Amino acid sequence: MTALTNPNDVYLLAQWLAGDHSNWQQAIDNPPFFAHIRVGIRALPNPITDNGVWLFLEQAYDYELHHPYRTAVLNLIYQNDRIEMINYRLKNAETFFGASRDRDQLAKLDAEAIAKLDGCTQWVHRADHQTFKGEVEHGKKCCLNRKGVDTYLAIEFEVTENTYSSLDRGYDIVTHERVWGSIAGAFNFVKKSSFSSEILLGSTP
Amino acid sequence: MTALTNPNDVYLLAQWLAGDHSNWQQAIDNPPFFAHIRVGIRALPNPITDNGVWLFLEQAYDYELHHPYRTAVLNLIYQNDRIEMINYRLKNAETFFGASRDRDQLAKLDAEAIAKLDGCTQWVHRADHQTFKGEVEHGKKCCLNRKGVDTYLAIEFEVTENTYSSLDRGYDIVTHERVWGSIAGAFNFVKKSSFSSEILLGSTP
Repeated sequence: MTALTNPNDVYLLAQWLAGDHSNWQQAIDNPPFFAHIRVGIRALPNPITDNGVWLFLEQAYDYELHHPYRTAVLNLIYQNDRIEMINYRLKNAETFFGASRDRDQLAKLDAEAIAKLDGCTQWVHRADHQTFKGEVEHGKKCCLNRKGVDTYLAIEFEVTENTYSSLDRGYDIVTHERVWGSIAGAFNFVKKSSFSSEILLGSTP
Repeated sequence: MTALTNPNDVYLLAQWLAGDHSNWQQAIDNPPFFAHIRVGIRALPNPITDNGVWLFLEQAYDYELHHPYRTAVLNLIYQNDRIEMINYRLKNAETFFGASRDRDQLAKLDAEAIAKLDGCTQWVHRADHQTFKGEVEHGKKCCLNRKGVDTYLAIEFEVTENTYSSLDRGYDIVTHERVWGSIAGAFNFVKKSSFSSEILLGSTP
């Protein structure tokens, strides 16, 4: 069923993800049902460990690019025959607002700045030659409170060399009803500029 | 069930609608599930007829304010014990892009510029002292093709003095399945500036 994922795919996935992604075309094609979103993903100039690849991610409305509504640090490693993207939150996210487009700012991000988010690792496998597919680890443990309701996160995403799509939803931890998220479908991003050359090979995937 | 709608409510509804509306707060509160939308509604400086009130409407992504994805002319009249908002399309919409914020441009809009849209009249009644509620006329005849599928429009909206909410959806004319529509519920707009003083009373409501 699943194409074989190999250890070096950690670097390939990181290269495909590293960039400035926009869903402008989708927003234009479906007014008014998709906001115009930008996702900036960039390798940490000073990786926290030698294990795999460390990426900074920030997601923002295009009109509020310097005030992202989501930031994260992702450590991509190869284990359990798949790529695991371990999810870290930033203790002081505002310090790094805009850092996906400012490498000097991003260089200041160190181990002290982040804390691991349990239950929120994303499992990624190679679906075919052109595609990786991912989801949140099983167990419904990636929890967040939204509008006063405790929800668990469900993400399905797909990455190719130049595109990235993601369907994010939140379900009530008690009733399992959908509390928030897309009804109209996944966000579809296209890579507008690539930061793949900053992905350094050679450490342990 | 329904509070009594009276003929002069045509003017009151028009005054409440006339303005520059934004859902910025909603977009900020629910990232990334609501695009930032602006709706500009303004009285025609040269009404097409003396019957009721004539409004121009344009709806745009905030980042594309001068390239609205929807334009319309609405004639609000009192008939059948309710307010009816008769919907006209612009034959050359681009000529009037931005006209809700440019009264000189809007003054050029005349009877030749518009064509009535059958089946797309909106029926509005007074729900209570503070609120009007509306919907598309019954009959499922307000059709539009979206992504290659013929759909009929369903709109539910609510207007108060300073707010305006709208839930727009399209259903397949054959299967009645929802084809497009709101990701996460109604759009909620707040009036940022009012053009109510341009609503002229005294003609036939």
